[in-house]
Amino acid sequence: MYNTKIKILNASVRLFNENGIDSVRLQQIADESEMSVGNLAYHYKSKDVLIEAVYERVFDEFNEIFRHYLKRPDLADFDIQISIYYTFFSRNRFYLSEFFKANNSTAPHYLQWQDCTAKMLLQLRSRLQFMVRKNELLPEKEPGQYELLAEQIWMSLVFFIPKSNMIGQHYDEISYKKNIWNLLRPYFGPDGLEEFRALIVPVLF
Amino acid sequence: MYNTKIKILNASVRLFNENGIDSVRLQQIADESEMSVGNLAYHYKSKDVLIEAVYERVFDEFNEIFRHYLKRPDLADFDIQISIYYTFFSRNRFYLSEFFKANNSTAPHYLQWQDCTAKMLLQLRSRLQFMVRKNELLPEKEPGQYELLAEQIWMSLVFFIPKSNMIGQHYDEISYKKNIWNLLRPYFGPDGLEEFRALIVPVLF
Repeated sequence: MYNTKIKILNASVRLFNENGIDSVRLQQIADESEMSVGNLAYHYKSKDVLIEAVYERVFDEFNEIFRHYLKRPDLADFDIQISIYYTFFSRNRFYLSEFFKANNSTAPHYLQWQDCTAKMLLQLRSRLQFMVRKNELLPEKEPGQYELLAEQIWMSLVFFIPKSNMIGQHYDEISYKKNIWNLLRPYFGPDGLEEFRALIVPVLF
Repeated sequence: MYNTKIKILNASVRLFNENGIDSVRLQQIADESEMSVGNLAYHYKSKDVLIEAVYERVFDEFNEIFRHYLKRPDLADFDIQISIYYTFFSRNRFYLSEFFKANNSTAPHYLQWQDCTAKMLLQLRSRLQFMVRKNELLPEKEPGQYELLAEQIWMSLVFFIPKSNMIGQHYDEISYKKNIWNLLRPYFGPDGLEEFRALIVPVLF
């Protein structure tokens, strides 16, 4: 993609995050991109075309996250994936907002989003099972325990930033990641705990 | 409050939930309330006045929940409070949507909402401490464990319904309540487990 297009998309996302898609005008995006509206329109004919391009990039980024699944077998691999989720959800706050607008099923790209969130859950579940097989996590004490844990981790990945905003709590990448590791912590076996203390604690805690 | 006013407020909330506050017109609210716009305007001069009345009732309901805190010392008391939360969050879905719009701090009644969510967390924390003192919950294995659990319960109370919508999962009061009890379950001591099996399991599981 041309640099100019990337510049315009970045400026749009910044403004969408701050003000909501609806209230941002092309003139503002042009100003934020440091170009004339004419020049902007040369790259993106209308606001609708621009919005579509923004969404396309959101889902490219989302799918990029999935490709980072289990590149290495250790806990640090999950830590990297959490970082990528943090970057994604803090950079694209506007999308979650659009999603919460009124009837969910009318949100733009509802099905794509639903598909992505289902994939997130699937990867989380598989990763937990993988950690159990590697003896990092204890075997399930009751059936469905790790299913529930996967859902809790999913909720924290998606809602930690809006939650912090709602209760007026400061957040950053460290607090985001700590929150996820704290959810996993009670389930570590001796091996997992040792690895956690060696790889994750020194960096985060 | 007059019956007519209640009827109008209920109709407004139903429409706000379905379509978002911005896109609902007074005419639609009048139709949904089965009255003329003139009659509607007699009770609420403008859409802004009506919106304010809707918010006022939202916060009345929210504060009503807090008054239901620990009316009885047993686990069924918490079950009742979870039910009330379910009713509140399923009935007022539009508010969470408004909150997610763009910049949180510009959401209507931002400070009131922040105040309510802080109170929710406070009550959850105290309730967990109360359950520990009553030997229903095991003592903390590591410091901060119940602080984290309170936050997880808070997230589920607030985001369970949007989460279900996002992943295209059916939800109802039973699944909402089960989810919360499943979070608590691993922390029950023998007394708590016995009470849980006697009071909660027969109704929910």
